[in-house]
Amino acid sequence: MRRALARVSMSIAILAAASTHALAQTTTGDADVERKADLVTAYKILVNEGILDSFGHVSVRSARDPNIFFMPRAMPPALVSPEDIMELWAPDSQPVDPRGRRVNGERYIHGEIYKARPDVMSVIHAHSQAVIPLSLTAIKMKPVIAQAGFLPPETPTFEIRDARKDGERGMQVTNSARGAALARTLSSYPVALMRGHGEVVVGSSVKQAVVYAAYVDINARMQTQALLLSRDIVALDARELFTPEEFDINRPWEHLRQKTLDDAAKAKVDRAQFGLDQTQTKR
Amino acid sequence: MRRALARVSMSIAILAAASTHALAQTTTGDADVERKADLVTAYKILVNEGILDSFGHVSVRSARDPNIFFMPRAMPPALVSPEDIMELWAPDSQPVDPRGRRVNGERYIHGEIYKARPDVMSVIHAHSQAVIPLSLTAIKMKPVIAQAGFLPPETPTFEIRDARKDGERGMQVTNSARGAALARTLSSYPVALMRGHGEVVVGSSVKQAVVYAAYVDINARMQTQALLLSRDIVALDARELFTPEEFDINRPWEHLRQKTLDDAAKAKVDRAQFGLDQTQTKR
Amino acid sequence: MRRALARVSMSIAILAAASTHALAQTTTGDADVERKADLVTAYKILVNEGILDSFGHVSVRSARDPNIFFMPRAMPPALVSPEDIMELWAPDSQPVDPRGRRVNGERYIHGEIYKARPDVMSVIHAHSQAVIPLSLTAIKMKPVIAQAGFLPPETPTFEIRDARKDGERGMQVTNSARGAALARTLSSYPVALMRGHGEVVVGSSVKQAVVYAAYVDINARMQTQALLLSRDIVALDARELFTPEEFDINRPWEHLRQKTLDDAAKAKVDRAQFGLDQTQTKR
Amino acid sequence: MRRALARVSMSIAILAAASTHALAQTTTGDADVERKADLVTAYKILVNEGILDSFGHVSVRSARDPNIFFMPRAMPPALVSPEDIMELWAPDSQPVDPRGRRVNGERYIHGEIYKARPDVMSVIHAHSQAVIPLSLTAIKMKPVIAQAGFLPPETPTFEIRDARKDGERGMQVTNSARGAALARTLSSYPVALMRGHGEVVVGSSVKQAVVYAAYVDINARMQTQALLLSRDIVALDARELFTPEEFDINRPWEHLRQKTLDDAAKAKVDRAQFGLDQTQTKR
Repeated sequence: MRRALARVSMSIAILAAASTHALAQTTTGDADVERKADLVTAYKILVNEGILDSFGHVSVRSARDPNIFFMPRAMPPALVSPEDIMELWAPDSQPVDPRGRRVNGERYIHGEIYKARPDVMSVIHAHSQAVIPLSLTAIKMKPVIAQAGFLPPETPTFEIRDARKDGERGMQVTNSARGAALARTLSSYPVALMRGHGEVVVGSSVKQAVVYAAYVDINARMQTQALLLSRDIVALDARELFTPEEFDINRPWEHLRQKTLDDAAKAKVDRAQFGLDQTQTKR
Repeated sequence: MRRALARVSMSIAILAAASTHALAQTTTGDADVERKADLVTAYKILVNEGILDSFGHVSVRSARDPNIFFMPRAMPPALVSPEDIMELWAPDSQPVDPRGRRVNGERYIHGEIYKARPDVMSVIHAHSQAVIPLSLTAIKMKPVIAQAGFLPPETPTFEIRDARKDGERGMQVTNSARGAALARTLSSYPVALMRGHGEVVVGSSVKQAVVYAAYVDINARMQTQALLLSRDIVALDARELFTPEEFDINRPWEHLRQKTLDDAAKAKVDRAQFGLDQTQTKR
Repeated sequence: MRRALARVSMSIAILAAASTHALAQTTTGDADVERKADLVTAYKILVNEGILDSFGHVSVRSARDPNIFFMPRAMPPALVSPEDIMELWAPDSQPVDPRGRRVNGERYIHGEIYKARPDVMSVIHAHSQAVIPLSLTAIKMKPVIAQAGFLPPETPTFEIRDARKDGERGMQVTNSARGAALARTLSSYPVALMRGHGEVVVGSSVKQAVVYAAYVDINARMQTQALLLSRDIVALDARELFTPEEFDINRPWEHLRQKTLDDAAKAKVDRAQFGLDQTQTKR
Repeated sequence: MRRALARVSMSIAILAAASTHALAQTTTGDADVERKADLVTAYKILVNEGILDSFGHVSVRSARDPNIFFMPRAMPPALVSPEDIMELWAPDSQPVDPRGRRVNGERYIHGEIYKARPDVMSVIHAHSQAVIPLSLTAIKMKPVIAQAGFLPPETPTFEIRDARKDGERGMQVTNSARGAALARTLSSYPVALMRGHGEVVVGSSVKQAVVYAAYVDINARMQTQALLLSRDIVALDARELFTPEEFDINRPWEHLRQKTLDDAAKAKVDRAQFGLDQTQTKR
């Protein structure tokens, strides 16, 4: 009953958002096949770039039902294949049909962000080693490279101590309350750092989230290195930030994807598994 | 005679420990085959991660006899295969049956830790380049990343000058006295840094030790980089440290292992050599 | 008409330059085939060295017509193949015959430099992560390594804020005015850094530009790291700078090219060629 | 005549040295075949470790005639094969029989060191990026890691400005006078840094020189990183330095060699697509 109610209220919010930015999006099962294919590619890219380590995870919202999101079972990112993808119910971050598969302990990051941000279609949680040092200090990440113009002037850093209830332990986002607190820190931004942990990056598609995650990684490294040289560095100003429409994500997506295919052995998996058009994949 | 006595007293200590944490562990020869297989995989992972260089080494305690541990002969880590594994006698760190193979000069690190720490089933000695800079300063390693919650608030650094007798020379742990001094510095911790040398990491299994070593490497790099940005950084607090049960080591183990298999050429060795179940290896 | 005029006046400037340095250069179509081949190789080398990321680009001037330059369509650098190369008209940076292919948004960097610098035969725009931190500070890049003697005592840094007209936005060089401003900052130098963006490197051939780009990357990293150690570092003096004739670019070009071919060939050579004992080599 | 005299006086010095440390060394042509094989392997290892870039070089003294040393022609290190090895005459660093091959411009580094140091059997000149930052400052390299105990308490840094005659230009060691000045800075040490340029490393064999070069690289990186954390770091003391007999170079040599053999297959694309001459590509 609670589920059904949540489903209705959430669907309304999502539909409102969808009307402005996702009209062209097909909402059939086929669109979901494509989203899952992108999800698997996202894992390959982010592992290859050293952004996803043993514990990061990526999800995508269903095109068919905005209360559903897809996410691999609890497993090493380097091993993710289409069969590992589970369906989760955003309102409570529980699996729709686990069939014995172990669900990811930090799925609440994803569920709570999908609830709070109807505009978000994909969520990445990574432990980028370029980002963590900044997260341990009082220094805020700022956009400093041309490709990081999607960032706000200052990216917020999530402090889990503020979200833990009395007596609670742990660094991980293992329940809805913590996930909701993280979503509040994220606010309307595309990225939040997480102190001592990594970052969460969201996008209007898997591709956008992956490309943003890649540039967050580079931006953090560049800002850090520049700060070691001088405390007086130049960040992007308001005229240098950009809107999503001004940033062609397909080029970095295909570039990063090609890097994962460099080796014949790696080339076998991928979209082909879903029977998708290979010519399209080629470029 | 001395051997027999040591064997008895040590077996008692080990059995006591075993009763609390290793009851499920089979203690047949088959368990040792599996441990040796993990040992070979450990070498592959740690070389691949850049943690083991030309001189690091890993050992595992026998499931059959707690006074016995397995360790490759003196050789380059990148070349270790099952045939290179020797049996050593923990009480004096001497080979059971050398058969002409050259034994590792720093085997005392392993033997002395197995003597002092009945809970320890595997020992890694590495020369991690992320760890060495910290070890050269008065700064102590602290847990700063979410996955390093197995570390104590401050990891001790071993100073071999305190362990060398009058007139003795050298940085290496080449006798029982030095090994015992290192074991005292290690105390009940999972890790000790070694000044100008690297680190020793121990675990209740090869897998745990390998995963801990991987996160020690990342944690040290993150702490170092953060300290260059600011002297005021946030370490994990008591509520953020975790117990072994709270940390799923299988996921990073399989992730790191998969990274070593990326290339078909590399995939041939490994557990297959031991006739172990391949399906099991697959995931 | 404007095109025809520009063509004539530019051709005169180019021919003057050509008389001093490019007489031996054939100006037939075959020379252009070779230049395009070098262009594709340049992409492979610069991607392999981590200098070209998702958005960098390289061009080469036509040997047949100095108003023409060759440059791949808008695409990921890792995917560039001969079929992707387009012909552009230097005076206005527009494609000669797009045939539906999307032209690169920052082609004005190339067109304006070819207009301003008749001596330049190749232009690279990269986002080198070694260069960006310096570009964010007031510190100027100086030549500090033996192989960077082609650099001026101080390399200029381009600030796009000085080139943007009132109300204009963005970090990218997306029109002729911005390209011309960059060309003015570049002046007669081989390199200009671009604040928060990367660098532009030019050469009298694709090979020279690629080799210069590789050493700019190393020089910036070495200067940065040295400055973290000490503010008092030694740069090359006037007697240590060199002229292009004093620097053999073929050696680094072939070395970097070979690195992209790294492979089976590598494993084959070795001691086996000498008929030495293979068992011995094995261990 | 001058050659003959130099040959005699040098042979005497070498023979004296040989009597103490190289008696077991065969001095037949077969020993030279093995030395040349090691030389080719040295190139593979040092390129793979990132120590030899486009311009480094390695040589080995002949076992047959101490006035002769072997060194590849002027060429990219990644391409060196047995056929590229030339014979040079140590007293004047000139090729014995060039047969049209271009001799390396910095061969004087090798020749002058072989003249000054009868104990040296192999010379490496590299541009290690770990070493260069230190060389640009007044900070001296000190041994800080256990495996760098072959280093003196302070490694000298060569300043070519002190070796250049009035009016001379350039950073490179392109004549005997500069080579001799470098040999004087090297003195009886195994290593000298070269300001803004790299280092020279010598050994009693190719293997020793390669292993020393690998640990110089790591030691410099560790010292640099530690100095960024704290100006108060611990270097090895007199009791922690070691003699060559105390350091097993075979293990790192075989380990590093194995790393060069790890993979296969990458090489197909490239200029072949254009139907360009493959022989040309080969070199």
